[in-house]
Amino acid sequence: MARLRALGELVYDQIERGEHPVLRIPDRSVSNIIYDEKLRQYVLGNKVTLRTTRNVKHLRAFAQLIWLAYFSKLLSESHKTSTLRDVFYSAQAYRVDFEDQDESDERITELEALLGMAREEFNVYPEERSSIFGNLVIEYNVPGYEGRRLDLTSHPDGVMIGPALTTADFVETDAEMVIAIEKGGLFTRFIEEKVHERFKAILVNTAGQAPRATRYLLRRLRSELNLPVYILTDGDPWGMHIAMVIISGSANAAHLTQLNVPDASWIGVWATDILKYKLPYDKLTDADVKRLRELARDPRYSGDPWRSQIDSFLEHRRKSEQEAFAKYGLTYIVDKYLPDKLGR
Amino acid sequence: MARLRALGELVYDQIERGEHPVLRIPDRSVSNIIYDEKLRQYVLGNKVTLRTTRNVKHLRAFAQLIWLAYFSKLLSESHKTSTLRDVFYSAQAYRVDFEDQDESDERITELEALLGMAREEFNVYPEERSSIFGNLVIEYNVPGYEGRRLDLTSHPDGVMIGPALTTADFVETDAEMVIAIEKGGLFTRFIEEKVHERFKAILVNTAGQAPRATRYLLRRLRSELNLPVYILTDGDPWGMHIAMVIISGSANAAHLTQLNVPDASWIGVWATDILKYKLPYDKLTDADVKRLRELARDPRYSGDPWRSQIDSFLEHRRKSEQEAFAKYGLTYIVDKYLPDKLGR
Repeated sequence: MARLRALGELVYDQIERGEHPVLRIPDRSVSNIIYDEKLRQYVLGNKVTLRTTRNVKHLRAFAQLIWLAYFSKLLSESHKTSTLRDVFYSAQAYRVDFEDQDESDERITELEALLGMAREEFNVYPEERSSIFGNLVIEYNVPGYEGRRLDLTSHPDGVMIGPALTTADFVETDAEMVIAIEKGGLFTRFIEEKVHERFKAILVNTAGQAPRATRYLLRRLRSELNLPVYILTDGDPWGMHIAMVIISGSANAAHLTQLNVPDASWIGVWATDILKYKLPYDKLTDADVKRLRELARDPRYSGDPWRSQIDSFLEHRRKSEQEAFAKYGLTYIVDKYLPDKLGR
Repeated sequence: MARLRALGELVYDQIERGEHPVLRIPDRSVSNIIYDEKLRQYVLGNKVTLRTTRNVKHLRAFAQLIWLAYFSKLLSESHKTSTLRDVFYSAQAYRVDFEDQDESDERITELEALLGMAREEFNVYPEERSSIFGNLVIEYNVPGYEGRRLDLTSHPDGVMIGPALTTADFVETDAEMVIAIEKGGLFTRFIEEKVHERFKAILVNTAGQAPRATRYLLRRLRSELNLPVYILTDGDPWGMHIAMVIISGSANAAHLTQLNVPDASWIGVWATDILKYKLPYDKLTDADVKRLRELARDPRYSGDPWRSQIDSFLEHRRKSEQEAFAKYGLTYIVDKYLPDKLGR
């Protein structure tokens, strides 16, 4: 709210001084996206774009942005959440014109860059929901639930990660690690096999590419509870990149630096695991190989285990899913593979 | 378990009598799929396919089916769940050969037809998870949670519908209806606007086409709690069909008759609502029109409101999403549209 108010005051001040209001928006074009070795993620450089009401061509986007800031303030004040799609339609209530949802999405991203915070913090959430399970008690901050608590082992199908969970406080835990898992099936398997007790682990189902709210939650589990974060994905370039985005963020969110977990570990399925555990595999497709060559040129992939795993994928041309361990029985992945990878 | 055991005994008996074992599998080909006016769904006719070990060409599929029945028994006995993908890989542990997952999926569907029960009942679940919220207390039946209860208002992001929820008992509720909603964003809106209290409603987020476990749960809410079920989707042929599959099932699950809610109501968004509420709309695409013409030929769509809504869609060529109501403010859909449609 303070940042939204500061934005409003900036515009008012300029008007009161008799100036045409101008906003300085961090430039998100490719030439201003820089890989930061220390943060281990893409960040924006110092270039800014001026959006000025002096230029009639800027007026439309300027007005859209100010309306968005106003609408975000309404959402935050009334503790209501919204989706990107909702925002697009809500604009019509105010006769603010967006050509299509791409245009309103772009403006929301600009507001993120301007405020230096993710849209979830001004109550605009994605549709997707992933889930969490483990020995962690949370306390809600959403209206009607203030002070109420939930033990995240209460529901053995997993607890949804939505606005209420994302904004809850962490109250109590005896967990010693976090394991993020790419797929719902394996997440359920881990609960059934009591990985949360046997490894004192909080389990997170990312349901594919982790939604931003989930990445933000993983970062909080790391920083507030000081827990190591391990990531388990399919053994292919796409799974590898799911892990990388959790660790180093994505280039198109380079304007945000609070959505990643720089010291999380990708523990598998590695290309070398496919050989070591003699897993059932499929041949890499042309698209897989093309993707691996792209990743090899990406600075995020310059260190270990990334570079050596890319080499191994390209050498052996094999990929395996997490489920491939079922070849050795449904519990093998928990009884053998997980202890191996965690050094237990 | 009784049905799996009966299947095993049937095969043993035939062997002990010195016969080649034969299975009679309900025929799922198009010529044997019949629309049942009374049940308001597709069902299979009386034709069966003989799978006989007398024919060497049948041996492979016969063995696969018997292994699947065996594996399903193991899953059920050990209270473990599995995904379709897991089953495919698990077969390798037993050196049972499936060419690809399509082949193992097909065999699982045959086992469903043979046993007359959905694969979820023998512990094979899909990856997808939808969610539920409302004044309903459930009691778990899964291992480690027997007798434990959960109030489905405990988590304001919604409670995941997985194996544990699907198999739980309904203990206590003061709800007077169930509202199934196509999209997560609107589901969250409904919770924030307290639709569960204002309308005494249990809310279900189908997250697009409702997964089978969710359809099964809706049927249980209807039959065990005697609650009317209302369905709210986008106003387009795809949303309409999401409602229809909940009401009348799908043709490719014609071998199962326990997955639908014949007297559920599709309350919108109707084609006529788009005009009545002056909703923002998009033009129907060629694909939308083609789909509408297909649905018009489908016997499930012969009654009301289906036929008249198809006509209205085709006449006005407009479609609107649920979020389009945000034009009138975020709460309009709850404050005005929902009472209109429920006659309150």
